[in-house]
Amino acid sequence: MYPVTPNTKISRSAKRGAYDEATINEILDEGLLCHIAYVQDGQPMMIPTGYCRIGNKIYIHGSVGSHFMRNLADGRKVCLTVSFLDGLVLARSAFSHSVNYRSVVIFSPATVVTDEQERWAALEAFTNHVIPGRWAEVREPSAKEMKATMVISFVIEEASAKVRTGGPNDDEEDYQVPVWAGVLPLKLQAQTPITDPKMLFEMPVPSYVLNYDKAAKPKQD
Amino acid sequence: MYPVTPNTKISRSAKRGAYDEATINEILDEGLLCHIAYVQDGQPMMIPTGYCRIGNKIYIHGSVGSHFMRNLADGRKVCLTVSFLDGLVLARSAFSHSVNYRSVVIFSPATVVTDEQERWAALEAFTNHVIPGRWAEVREPSAKEMKATMVISFVIEEASAKVRTGGPNDDEEDYQVPVWAGVLPLKLQAQTPITDPKMLFEMPVPSYVLNYDKAAKPKQD
Repeated sequence: MYPVTPNTKISRSAKRGAYDEATINEILDEGLLCHIAYVQDGQPMMIPTGYCRIGNKIYIHGSVGSHFMRNLADGRKVCLTVSFLDGLVLARSAFSHSVNYRSVVIFSPATVVTDEQERWAALEAFTNHVIPGRWAEVREPSAKEMKATMVISFVIEEASAKVRTGGPNDDEEDYQVPVWAGVLPLKLQAQTPITDPKMLFEMPVPSYVLNYDKAAKPKQD
Repeated sequence: MYPVTPNTKISRSAKRGAYDEATINEILDEGLLCHIAYVQDGQPMMIPTGYCRIGNKIYIHGSVGSHFMRNLADGRKVCLTVSFLDGLVLARSAFSHSVNYRSVVIFSPATVVTDEQERWAALEAFTNHVIPGRWAEVREPSAKEMKATMVISFVIEEASAKVRTGGPNDDEEDYQVPVWAGVLPLKLQAQTPITDPKMLFEMPVPSYVLNYDKAAKPKQD
C-alpha cells in the first residue's frame, strides 16, 4: 500500500481510488504507452512513450540526443500516467453517461540509469513487456547502440490508481426513459500481422505474435 | 497549417511531424481520451479525460467541484495530448524495434466557457463525438445539471502531430538474422454490448452501438 499524499489523494469519486501495489502493478503491466508530464521553463510539457516495470521502478528509454530525455536527465520530477478506456457507459440521461477506465498516476523524480547491468535488464524487460518472448529471438544491442541509448527510471512510491467498472447509474425517474442503456466494452486488440516484405527467409508468424493479447493475465503456476 | 513554435517543433524524427489542420483534426476526431498536463505549485500534474472538437476548439467538461477543473479555471496554459498506438514494429534487432503511432500535442490556455449556448453545443458535441447519434435519444441536461457542470475550451493554435507508419527499418546486415519481422497492428475495438440489467423495457441494441467503430472515416457526401 502506497502512502496517500496531497498529489495522489483521489478527491472526486474517492471510492474509485486505490493505493495498493497489486492494483497499480496490474495496470502498469498491461499498458504499452505512458504519458509523461514535466515542467520546462514554467510550462507543462508532455510526451507519450513506451515503458516497462521491474519491481518498484518504471523504465523508459530514448536517444541520448532526444530533447525529452535530456530535459529529464537533470532529475526533475515528472507525473507519469498509464490509462485504459475500458468501455462506454450509456445511461438514459446525457448527464449520467460515463466511461469505464483504469488509470495509474505516479509522481517521481527522473533518474538516469548508469549501471550497465541495470540498463541492459531494463531494455530486455522493455522488449519482453511489449511483446513477451521477443528479446530471445532478435539481435541484442551492440555496444554502439547501448551508447546511443539513455535509460531513465522512476521509482513507484507516490502512486495511485483510479478504476471505474460496471453499468450506468441513472437518476431514479430516468429509468422510465425508453432508450437502450448499458456498456459498450472497448479493448485494444491485435489485428492480422503484416509480414515485412523485405524478409529474406520464409518464416511462420511466431505464436507470440499470432496470439498476442496484452490484457491476458500471466499464468499463475 | 499551424505555425511551428519552439514548443511544437518536432526535433526527433522530424519527417514524422505534421502541422496541418487535416492531419491534426483527423487524429483529434478519432480519439476518445486526451491527457492534459498542467503546472500546480511548480509541479507537473496530469489528468486523462474525454473531449471533443468543434472547429478550432477542444472542449472538456467536469464537475464544478473538481479540483482539476477548478485549477484550470484560472486560465493557465496546458499541454493536451491525444495518442494512438497503432502497431508494434518488430525488427531483426532489439534496437530497431519501434511502434506505429499517431499523436497530437496542443499548447493552449484554458478558458472557462460561460456562454450557455456554447456550453450546450459543447456537451451535445461531446456526447455525439463519443458515440454518434446518442444525444438525440437520451434525456437532455436539466438546468441543475448544467449548473453543476463546468465546460472548458482550448483553442487549437499551437499544435503539432507526429505519425509513424510502415514496417521495420533494420540495419543492412541484420536482414540476415533468421527471425520473423513485420508489424502487429493494434486497434481499440468495441466488444459485445452489455445491456443494463436494470432496463425496464425490452429494447434492441441500437445500430450505433452494435456497429460502433470510432476509427471509421466519416462518409464524404
